[in-house]
Amino acid sequence: MKDIVFLIQCSDNKGLLSNITSFFYENKFNILNCQQHTDLYTNKYFMRIKIDMADLKISRKKLEGNFAQFAKSYDLQWSIHYSDYVPKVAVFVSKTSHCLYDLLVKAKENDLNCEIPLIVSNHPDLEYVADQFKIPFYSYDINKNNKLEKEVEIQELLKKHHIDLVVLARYMQILSGGFIDNYKNKIINIHHAFLPAFQGANPYLRAYERGVKIIGATAHYATVDLDEGPIIEQDVKPVSHELTAGDLKRIGKDIEASVLSKATKLHLDNQIIITNNRTIIFS
Amino acid sequence: MKDIVFLIQCSDNKGLLSNITSFFYENKFNILNCQQHTDLYTNKYFMRIKIDMADLKISRKKLEGNFAQFAKSYDLQWSIHYSDYVPKVAVFVSKTSHCLYDLLVKAKENDLNCEIPLIVSNHPDLEYVADQFKIPFYSYDINKNNKLEKEVEIQELLKKHHIDLVVLARYMQILSGGFIDNYKNKIINIHHAFLPAFQGANPYLRAYERGVKIIGATAHYATVDLDEGPIIEQDVKPVSHELTAGDLKRIGKDIEASVLSKATKLHLDNQIIITNNRTIIFS
Amino acid sequence: MKDIVFLIQCSDNKGLLSNITSFFYENKFNILNCQQHTDLYTNKYFMRIKIDMADLKISRKKLEGNFAQFAKSYDLQWSIHYSDYVPKVAVFVSKTSHCLYDLLVKAKENDLNCEIPLIVSNHPDLEYVADQFKIPFYSYDINKNNKLEKEVEIQELLKKHHIDLVVLARYMQILSGGFIDNYKNKIINIHHAFLPAFQGANPYLRAYERGVKIIGATAHYATVDLDEGPIIEQDVKPVSHELTAGDLKRIGKDIEASVLSKATKLHLDNQIIITNNRTIIFS
Amino acid sequence: MKDIVFLIQCSDNKGLLSNITSFFYENKFNILNCQQHTDLYTNKYFMRIKIDMADLKISRKKLEGNFAQFAKSYDLQWSIHYSDYVPKVAVFVSKTSHCLYDLLVKAKENDLNCEIPLIVSNHPDLEYVADQFKIPFYSYDINKNNKLEKEVEIQELLKKHHIDLVVLARYMQILSGGFIDNYKNKIINIHHAFLPAFQGANPYLRAYERGVKIIGATAHYATVDLDEGPIIEQDVKPVSHELTAGDLKRIGKDIEASVLSKATKLHLDNQIIITNNRTIIFS
Repeated sequence: MKDIVFLIQCSDNKGLLSNITSFFYENKFNILNCQQHTDLYTNKYFMRIKIDMADLKISRKKLEGNFAQFAKSYDLQWSIHYSDYVPKVAVFVSKTSHCLYDLLVKAKENDLNCEIPLIVSNHPDLEYVADQFKIPFYSYDINKNNKLEKEVEIQELLKKHHIDLVVLARYMQILSGGFIDNYKNKIINIHHAFLPAFQGANPYLRAYERGVKIIGATAHYATVDLDEGPIIEQDVKPVSHELTAGDLKRIGKDIEASVLSKATKLHLDNQIIITNNRTIIFS
Repeated sequence: MKDIVFLIQCSDNKGLLSNITSFFYENKFNILNCQQHTDLYTNKYFMRIKIDMADLKISRKKLEGNFAQFAKSYDLQWSIHYSDYVPKVAVFVSKTSHCLYDLLVKAKENDLNCEIPLIVSNHPDLEYVADQFKIPFYSYDINKNNKLEKEVEIQELLKKHHIDLVVLARYMQILSGGFIDNYKNKIINIHHAFLPAFQGANPYLRAYERGVKIIGATAHYATVDLDEGPIIEQDVKPVSHELTAGDLKRIGKDIEASVLSKATKLHLDNQIIITNNRTIIFS
Repeated sequence: MKDIVFLIQCSDNKGLLSNITSFFYENKFNILNCQQHTDLYTNKYFMRIKIDMADLKISRKKLEGNFAQFAKSYDLQWSIHYSDYVPKVAVFVSKTSHCLYDLLVKAKENDLNCEIPLIVSNHPDLEYVADQFKIPFYSYDINKNNKLEKEVEIQELLKKHHIDLVVLARYMQILSGGFIDNYKNKIINIHHAFLPAFQGANPYLRAYERGVKIIGATAHYATVDLDEGPIIEQDVKPVSHELTAGDLKRIGKDIEASVLSKATKLHLDNQIIITNNRTIIFS
Repeated sequence: MKDIVFLIQCSDNKGLLSNITSFFYENKFNILNCQQHTDLYTNKYFMRIKIDMADLKISRKKLEGNFAQFAKSYDLQWSIHYSDYVPKVAVFVSKTSHCLYDLLVKAKENDLNCEIPLIVSNHPDLEYVADQFKIPFYSYDINKNNKLEKEVEIQELLKKHHIDLVVLARYMQILSGGFIDNYKNKIINIHHAFLPAFQGANPYLRAYERGVKIIGATAHYATVDLDEGPIIEQDVKPVSHELTAGDLKRIGKDIEASVLSKATKLHLDNQIIITNNRTIIFS
């Protein structure tokens, strides 16, 4: 069953739910699912509404035009997503393969609704994984001097392939502010710690030294402020003193892969609205 | 802020969300929160809608009459709940105090929106707990021969105190079918196992013998079929071979208390709709 | 650092720990790690002791002979495991790839200490996965009439490749009692339910119908009594009414893969002793 | 069954396990339980050994003298704990009752092996809880000017009652360095955040603002560096955007109470060794 998802945010007002749902009812759409959230601190209203694409009797352009007109009167910010469009994802990696494998396997098993037309890396190490899944692998030798130049090349590549989402699957190279601005809210990163604890490098070693009893991982949208972007998904596992920093790393790999895949799925299924550095997750 | 909650279920139909929310909009109510669920297997529609009581300009009776009329045309089953009404809860216990304590403390700390005017028991042991919290304690010496007779007495007591909900906090006596029918969907029980595993007696011993690596507890509505009622809440903890059946019991106590309190809170906050022996939890 | 692990079980007796550790001390071995467990119900004693292989100044045969003689006087059941031996694992699959992928990726990333020289299947579907990892794939067309005959072929294949462990990675074909007897405590199965709940077929559909709030998976040694073997590892995830049986299946896939890989790792790292249909896990 | 626990730490050396267990074997003690840990980073060895008190044929003083002599030759740091001694615990509180209730109920139900002879507070609010459990309540009106003076009074009170452990059950007043030094490794604090995230005040509000998907609590030994002491126990719960900072606070209360009680139990059961600002937990 094909569907259309609207993601909407605006100032909270009486009658929003009634008026928006009436728009779809009057246009003879069956509402398959509708979720709302009102943030009492900011007085903002958020909605995800899913309608049946079989009820679409006019062109997509016309639907969007009609809704745009309606939206103007309520000052809605909105986006529209058709389930028959398959988003294109570029995965960025460096030397560790666990997150990459999890994404590729889930995409292949149709547990992620996307195409992965290319893998980008700043190291040649993981080309064999790309080969296993027959996906083109683009390796860039990036250093301080050529970084901006290489980033231009990479962005051209992304444009050429109409990439909708970049997933940093343990990509150990900080993207420049310009790159991030060009892909605002379209870059998901995995941080191998339970943010905001252990921001920065070597979180497992620092977790070991601090003697924490639980470790975790965090998937978030990349922003210019490192490790400070809107959090999408987090998970944790209990650990004991028996484990070395190396053990924590190994256990962490499973958490990282699972958290990154879940965050990617939430994005691809249009279940996320971003507001003020926080995410509203309609799951 | 006071509010009114409607819990609604009916056959799924186009326009339900739009029509129901329009009812409230036209009656000038601000919708504070609205959640829906469509069960694709049974084609049933479920809704929890919370409106601002400050917008109530007519009598409650009139509101209910208006909505009843509206509901008839869509064949809605519904109930209404005013947040300024404090439900009355009777707690039933036998000999173990952990679930009772957790309910009493949470009620006292205003983490459970209820009054507990009485505690019922088939053993005198826990009277001291009732005394600590200055709650009347009714102890019944129940055996096979006098069970139905005593149950009549207990039900009269419940009626006299206008009890809205019975919570079986490790009450080790099976209620008769008649009692359960009189309090349909108004009796919550805690089972000290992860149902449907280990139904019946001695779940911790059996969990030990089977060598499971996780134990749990289940809160459900009481039905005539023992341990088969609609599940409200479940939780689990990992366990190891180091633990004896006695240890499992001790660890289980925390899970039981927490699961029962959560289920009770969900009921008191009108977040549960029951359908076909399953619960829809709007949380 | 190479090491030698002894797994020991016997009746509990005063002085066991002191005497066993003295054996190793007198033979000039450094004990890297030692764990014990006494089961108070059965009065049995269990031990896992890891010594430094660098201290081995005699032949392995001689060490085993010496320990055998020592063990006789205390009536110890024991096994010895050298960390420089890489166990050989055969993975059995049918049509779903998620558990297979997780095992292959972890073996490739050196997170599982094993070689996987072959994959066995009763369906041709997953040959492409075997190809991706360049592992020979043996597909058998098994039916009621030829089952025992085909099992003989498969066992010959296992023997030829000196297989130490069989992992049933969602292999949807019941092995005969004879096969299981020949690989006693050497076959690990994944059951896609939180045993003992939902034994048998279609656990996710039944979990949906029963309205449970948590689903899980169980890895256990295969025994002739289906779904009744010693449990090695279990894990669970919370679920809500929003999810269809299909969603439960998708969520379950991650739990299954993770639980099966963990159980396989525990076995390969010689951290499991089996006793009376239960496992002692030294982790 | 009564027992004696030794907690031991020293530099790692060949033969330690054999020699220590031989000491007990030669002195005709049955070892009920023995756990070890070797920290590979610091080359330190840790042991918890539990022996049967029924085997004690000499005076406790003599046993301690004998072991002291033995310990000297291996340079062991050690402590001894007799299970028939019931430790005395002082609970410090301010205005919130949930942690206090959980400790009092568990002590009353014999799930904590201790006596609680007194409750100390810097506010009079919770006297009714102390009254419910018939425990003396000492309220101090503490401000900047009289703090050290009042702390002297409190410490005299603790001495008079032979207090072994101080549990800060949401005590919202920083103890002076002198107080902490006098009760080194004998003060357990609960911090209402998943340390090291959200150190300091208002963690739930800051967790809300940062949009984390999981909140937690941390029990640790109090040190002069606030929120930096050795972590004993941590636990977390998933949270969603639906929850206000107030909801996080309510959910957090359950985590705090449970984490603090578990940490207190681990301490009372002599399962903790502290080393370099980390804890070794033998559970």
